[in-house]
Amino acid sequence: MFRTHTCGELNLKNVNLSVTLSGWVQTIRKFGSITFVDLRDRYGITQLLFAEHLNEQLEANPLGREFVLQVSGTVSERSNKNAHLATGDIEILVTDFSILNKSITPPFTIQDDTDGGDDLRMKYRFLDLRRNAVKRNLELRYAVGRSTRNYLHEQQFMDIETPFLIKSTPEGARDFVVPSRMNPGQFYALPQSPQTFKQLLMVSGYDRYYQIVKCFRDEDLRADRQPEFTQIDCEMAFVEQEDILNMFEGLVKRIFKDVKNIDYTEKAERMTWENAMWTYGNDKPDIRFGMKLCNLKYPSHTFPGREDLSHLISGADFKVFDEAESVIAISAPGCSEYTRKQTDELTEWVKRPQIGMKGLVYIKCNADGSFKSSIDKFYSEEKLKAIATAMQAQPGDLILMLAGAEERTRKATSELRLHLGQQLGLRQPHEFKLLWVLDFPLFEYAEDDNRWVARHHPFTSPKPTDIDTMINNNPVIENPAEYLKHPYANIKANAYDMVLNGNEIGGGSIRIFQKELQQKMFAALGMDEHEQQHKFGFLLGAFEYGAPPHGGIAFGFDRLCAILGGSESIRDFIAFPKNNSGRDVMIDAPSAIDQKQFDELQIRLDLK
Amino acid sequence: MFRTHTCGELNLKNVNLSVTLSGWVQTIRKFGSITFVDLRDRYGITQLLFAEHLNEQLEANPLGREFVLQVSGTVSERSNKNAHLATGDIEILVTDFSILNKSITPPFTIQDDTDGGDDLRMKYRFLDLRRNAVKRNLELRYAVGRSTRNYLHEQQFMDIETPFLIKSTPEGARDFVVPSRMNPGQFYALPQSPQTFKQLLMVSGYDRYYQIVKCFRDEDLRADRQPEFTQIDCEMAFVEQEDILNMFEGLVKRIFKDVKNIDYTEKAERMTWENAMWTYGNDKPDIRFGMKLCNLKYPSHTFPGREDLSHLISGADFKVFDEAESVIAISAPGCSEYTRKQTDELTEWVKRPQIGMKGLVYIKCNADGSFKSSIDKFYSEEKLKAIATAMQAQPGDLILMLAGAEERTRKATSELRLHLGQQLGLRQPHEFKLLWVLDFPLFEYAEDDNRWVARHHPFTSPKPTDIDTMINNNPVIENPAEYLKHPYANIKANAYDMVLNGNEIGGGSIRIFQKELQQKMFAALGMDEHEQQHKFGFLLGAFEYGAPPHGGIAFGFDRLCAILGGSESIRDFIAFPKNNSGRDVMIDAPSAIDQKQFDELQIRLDLK
Repeated sequence: MFRTHTCGELNLKNVNLSVTLSGWVQTIRKFGSITFVDLRDRYGITQLLFAEHLNEQLEANPLGREFVLQVSGTVSERSNKNAHLATGDIEILVTDFSILNKSITPPFTIQDDTDGGDDLRMKYRFLDLRRNAVKRNLELRYAVGRSTRNYLHEQQFMDIETPFLIKSTPEGARDFVVPSRMNPGQFYALPQSPQTFKQLLMVSGYDRYYQIVKCFRDEDLRADRQPEFTQIDCEMAFVEQEDILNMFEGLVKRIFKDVKNIDYTEKAERMTWENAMWTYGNDKPDIRFGMKLCNLKYPSHTFPGREDLSHLISGADFKVFDEAESVIAISAPGCSEYTRKQTDELTEWVKRPQIGMKGLVYIKCNADGSFKSSIDKFYSEEKLKAIATAMQAQPGDLILMLAGAEERTRKATSELRLHLGQQLGLRQPHEFKLLWVLDFPLFEYAEDDNRWVARHHPFTSPKPTDIDTMINNNPVIENPAEYLKHPYANIKANAYDMVLNGNEIGGGSIRIFQKELQQKMFAALGMDEHEQQHKFGFLLGAFEYGAPPHGGIAFGFDRLCAILGGSESIRDFIAFPKNNSGRDVMIDAPSAIDQKQFDELQIRLDLK
Repeated sequence: MFRTHTCGELNLKNVNLSVTLSGWVQTIRKFGSITFVDLRDRYGITQLLFAEHLNEQLEANPLGREFVLQVSGTVSERSNKNAHLATGDIEILVTDFSILNKSITPPFTIQDDTDGGDDLRMKYRFLDLRRNAVKRNLELRYAVGRSTRNYLHEQQFMDIETPFLIKSTPEGARDFVVPSRMNPGQFYALPQSPQTFKQLLMVSGYDRYYQIVKCFRDEDLRADRQPEFTQIDCEMAFVEQEDILNMFEGLVKRIFKDVKNIDYTEKAERMTWENAMWTYGNDKPDIRFGMKLCNLKYPSHTFPGREDLSHLISGADFKVFDEAESVIAISAPGCSEYTRKQTDELTEWVKRPQIGMKGLVYIKCNADGSFKSSIDKFYSEEKLKAIATAMQAQPGDLILMLAGAEERTRKATSELRLHLGQQLGLRQPHEFKLLWVLDFPLFEYAEDDNRWVARHHPFTSPKPTDIDTMINNNPVIENPAEYLKHPYANIKANAYDMVLNGNEIGGGSIRIFQKELQQKMFAALGMDEHEQQHKFGFLLGAFEYGAPPHGGIAFGFDRLCAILGGSESIRDFIAFPKNNSGRDVMIDAPSAIDQKQFDELQIRLDLK
């Protein structure tokens, strides 16, 4: 037996007990003839005391950092207690020890504040995983998974495995494909999600399905994307949107409780997609703080029926505003005393290529009620005051205004809002705010092909009130310049996103379950009947045999864990992540394969 | 809201309650002006009564089998109760109904005793999954998974996800490979198991890991194999074999209790691999019944030190036995009165190509103490009696003897034993017997390459007492004819299989955790240093930084579920299985891919 206890459980109650521990040498400290060793395992750290009589043996078998050690000894009360450690009241008086395995010097320290850089830690991920900081992340991940399974089990969901070797039906993202040796010339695809299979399960009557499942997308990777990622994938039959919102708001709250001990008792906020765009410039707003957008000018067709404030900025001969499609402002609380340097920094920030604005206009709402702005030349104090009043800006606030093309300006204002929120400490990683964003557009316009693409995916149902519009109109866009006037532009989806602290953690929809509507949808996306049959014949077929109304949701498990862990990076919450080129630098994959493998698969390279 | 209750929960307590149900039309029966409908969902069946006043509406909206129906009505006590149904005491007096979706006529009946053949059911798997028999299988599968997770959680195991896009290191089975678009000319492989990753997690200090995880093997499929299959994959650090046997015997017993309500209190039997081969001719014996092998003749080097019974059959001038390498017998209880037709059938059975024997010798141990055999010409009654006595055959038994080459004869006798056990009703699907098979040989001899291959896998440790033999001997086999005399032939592995009712449900080993021993193992398998570094450099590297002693096990989840469900076929326990050509006939995968995909991946077909 390698151990009687772990390194995390002994305390004063165990004094005088004979124990055996195994673990890694964290630190070695010599005090005269006595050697102290901190022994570490998954459960904690226990101090070992090697008294003088072991010195000879220690000299013959010198210990080193990260050596694997087995010791036997007696639990003893420490004179010099460590209140930070669960085992800090005791130490082990070692009677016997053996080195189970040695270690060469690790390339970085196994500590929270390690000296290892990112690349080095990824190459030696097996050592990085020893660090407490990483271990806590994986423990949190496990806890989130377990909480999810318990909740869904109690709600009568069944975990049903769907296949990984499926059919390539590229729509949007690229598939990873797998050549089939037994079917030469043919390929499997790895699933981007189990979407169609979970819908088939609904057709089969398994009315509450879930899976915590790997999914695959061959996309060019951004910082926070992985070619393989994990979803909490769920589907329900005989439900409407409201049933799903309640069920999965319950799931997230249960996770808050189980994992963070947070009683999230209030209802999650709800907001239409249009309101989110209008108020936050973003379909996944961080609602932990205000600083809402003030839409001083915008193209009327984008937000029909909204208040028009353009008179506040027009007629002042300020060309930047007059010529801009949109002018959008936010008010930063308590920032009126920003120095020139600070406002210049903000201006530089919005001029970065990632944001892409030409400049930034500010109005300081001074504490004394006066106003000072970068556009004093054009706007009287009275006019500035009117703007401030419309924005409900308070004395002490700093109004920031961006002008330009609608889409870019709205996005930039949203980014600026988040940036300032961060700077002002309004985005605390351990404060959590849930939001449902609802009523997304069903379609987006693809300029390149002059056709519609599905904003969510081709299986999302339109709102019941929009089904007739969809069925009774030709999806063809006759006049690309006026695509917004096409009836399809206003069709809303029966779709919903769950947003946590400005991150989309989940999204889903009520699905189409009528064959004709599904065919109309495929046609709207430019798929002819042959292609429909080839790619999704099995689903259209299934819809002929009594498909029930159904809908579902999928949560990004990696991201959910990262946010709950207070981190921006999903990579920190994945045991063996890949880098931005999709490489696992530890095992050095992908890599070349043997000629024999090419021969058997009947493929060859065709490198450009 | 689509329903207030499911079709499985209403009973006499709910009489007079107004309810809404949704489900599928199982049957429609008209009695005069009244229509009865059985409405089915995942939870059960509820009888609906459509009274006369609904006839007009029913005629306008005729119902059909598998239509999706929503009904509202009142719970009412049935006059004609059905004790077989949980809801059999009540029916719903329908006040209102609507057809949510129609169904064309299904290609087979949605019943336990369906009229659909295998191929048809696989093509319409979404309908097959509606059948109760299949649903019960998936429910059992979910229950086994949940029981597993609960037990392992209580034992402080952590579910940690390992990557699916890894490196191709073919050893034994073929890898499925995935071309990398971002790394042209390079390929990922899908994991045959998370073996090396779970070992790295042990090096990282996560001393109790598990995962219920998909694995992939590109093998020519036998009836009971799938290209993707699911493992319960486990690993522990700081353990010896005994720790692992106890932990996972506990897991299986917990599953018995949770899923089958069986208190499996006795300890699982244990047997060395050699004893299993000697006694049952098989390394995964079904120990629910006796009929042990009697080794009348065998090559002495195969089982050194065992009793020699060859004098019982020698000196009789019976060439078949005299010229055979091995003669092995079993005794079938109570079969002495088998007719000529029956013994002929058994003879034909062993002569089938799958068994491949030349014939079968029998001795009838008659109830009156006399003997009658097919070799009376050669063996006196006294000699027959001596054989029967050595076998502990009882009056009434039928002794069956096979002769031929050792390996084939042993295997054939084992098959014959199982065949007779089945015929005699000694293999009841709902009786369960657990067995650990231990002390496997570490190596097998590969005749084609005149080298050693790992019987389990290259990470399995030899028995501690055999490590020196392994380290201190050259693995090269100088004389192929005498490979059995090579010291490596007798090295035993620290490996164990769990056998349930004659099926290997799990297997594992204590792993090598010393770099030098691992290198020696790779070398023994014919890998030079360059290949070792290329394929497993990361593991050898990890072993330099304090690898702890560790070991693990993996259970075949599909098979475990099948056996617990009393079935021989894993396919019945997989929601969307593939056929023997690795095809999913429902979605028609694998399939051709677009030229664009070939171009992006920089590969092309090279069909022969």
